[in-house]
Amino acid sequence: MQTVLRGPSSEIIISPETPIVMIGERINPTGRKAFSAELQAGDLSRIPRDAQAQADAGATVLDVNVGAVSVDEAALLPQAVRLVQDTVDLPVCIDSADPAALEAGLKAARGRSLVNSVNGETAKLKAVLPIVAEYDAAVIALCMDDDGIPTTPEGRLRVAENILNEAARLGIRPADVVFDPLVMAISADATAGLVTTTAARLIRETFGCNMTAGASNGSHGMPERELLNTVFLALLAQVGVNAPICNPLKNGLAIRAIDLLMGLDEWGMGYIKAYRALPKA
Amino acid sequence: MQTVLRGPSSEIIISPETPIVMIGERINPTGRKAFSAELQAGDLSRIPRDAQAQADAGATVLDVNVGAVSVDEAALLPQAVRLVQDTVDLPVCIDSADPAALEAGLKAARGRSLVNSVNGETAKLKAVLPIVAEYDAAVIALCMDDDGIPTTPEGRLRVAENILNEAARLGIRPADVVFDPLVMAISADATAGLVTTTAARLIRETFGCNMTAGASNGSHGMPERELLNTVFLALLAQVGVNAPICNPLKNGLAIRAIDLLMGLDEWGMGYIKAYRALPKA
Repeated sequence: MQTVLRGPSSEIIISPETPIVMIGERINPTGRKAFSAELQAGDLSRIPRDAQAQADAGATVLDVNVGAVSVDEAALLPQAVRLVQDTVDLPVCIDSADPAALEAGLKAARGRSLVNSVNGETAKLKAVLPIVAEYDAAVIALCMDDDGIPTTPEGRLRVAENILNEAARLGIRPADVVFDPLVMAISADATAGLVTTTAARLIRETFGCNMTAGASNGSHGMPERELLNTVFLALLAQVGVNAPICNPLKNGLAIRAIDLLMGLDEWGMGYIKAYRALPKA
Repeated sequence: MQTVLRGPSSEIIISPETPIVMIGERINPTGRKAFSAELQAGDLSRIPRDAQAQADAGATVLDVNVGAVSVDEAALLPQAVRLVQDTVDLPVCIDSADPAALEAGLKAARGRSLVNSVNGETAKLKAVLPIVAEYDAAVIALCMDDDGIPTTPEGRLRVAENILNEAARLGIRPADVVFDPLVMAISADATAGLVTTTAARLIRETFGCNMTAGASNGSHGMPERELLNTVFLALLAQVGVNAPICNPLKNGLAIRAIDLLMGLDEWGMGYIKAYRALPKA
């Protein structure tokens, strides 16, 4: 199953047969005080640098989120999207909790974008899916609904099924729904990793869909987070999470190592190239 | 399926439901010049230190190999085994290409040992399996035979089946055969990782057996070997390789990270303990 995304003149394919697609997560004010302050002042100057650095580190889709407190996202998100695509020829992942901002971002984007995100909540489905359909975008779908985040893999599978059914009613194909099986902190619940990988496996086996995940959420509150993130990205990839949202500057080489050991890097050159591109210590 | 090993007064279980068992690989002269020279001089003084250091780093089975050039293994291996078990209360993995040395090692070992190794070669089966049966040991079985190492996962599965049949004729149960799906260098063949993980998945699905692997063989000739080893150990563990042979001083925390994210570390304390035990930089 192929999710086809496009930049101004590029095409990126997410599929089980092709190398893992890194969705670069850096253009997001969450946990970044300086960037939040800049966005509040209308200063977008950091965005081209962040876009270029992530592309250089191997991201081929860039998440764009300007949701800092008091920011008018519907006004700022399209500007940010244009800045990103003026810098790098890549598809964007338009990230906002505000449907109006999502629509404004989609209008501004060139190519075919990914929307971040819908979930199984009735209101969210109603607000977001029609926009996805209208702009012929793909969409990230979180496996939670009006009852919250199911604690079991089977519960998350059922939410995924509901979302697929709602999407189908609007003509959105399963290939354009990229599920997020949801990563919770293992510091709070030591079964969280297994629940997520099992949910991912079920979703891939049942629907064949491509998947994303924010693997680094799993390691919150634990020591040696980078090791945990590497291990989790590998476990997730093997059960179908082939478009993780991550920091390519930290996880880029690990992702290429996973490709290589999963047989997705035909001559090993993806790994070697990523190694050579590392900033030398 | 449980492989039960015993030290002088300890019991170690290898099973899909329990934390990964690290078989410490350090007591082996391969690639260790100083240790080779010591063995050639009959000096075993390094062995207690290596045994203790590996146990401290989380290994719960210790491989013992004294196969340096010109060493009389049948004489030296039992001494080495006794030294290891005088130092740490753990089962040993008795490692030699010489059946007489394996038997001498088994005689010297206390508890219930693992034999390293048999494979599907006619001569090897005939020489090693009767000793395994006689001493009620468990055995590592490499997925290769008189025709060499099969290049396909299905080929390695067929070798595994032959070995299980031969073992059964001598009363050795599948639970006491720990398969090694064989790890080849990805620098020589970029599909090598996928072949090994697929073989492991088939063996686990078909026979339910526990498995070992020397994951570090995969990264020979590549940069950033430790990252590759971590990723490969994770991918292998998820398809059933639950008793890797490795260097616990290098891979110990990664193994506990894999446990944690696979839901095998109920309170996360295995990981935290391993982190706290790390030598501080």
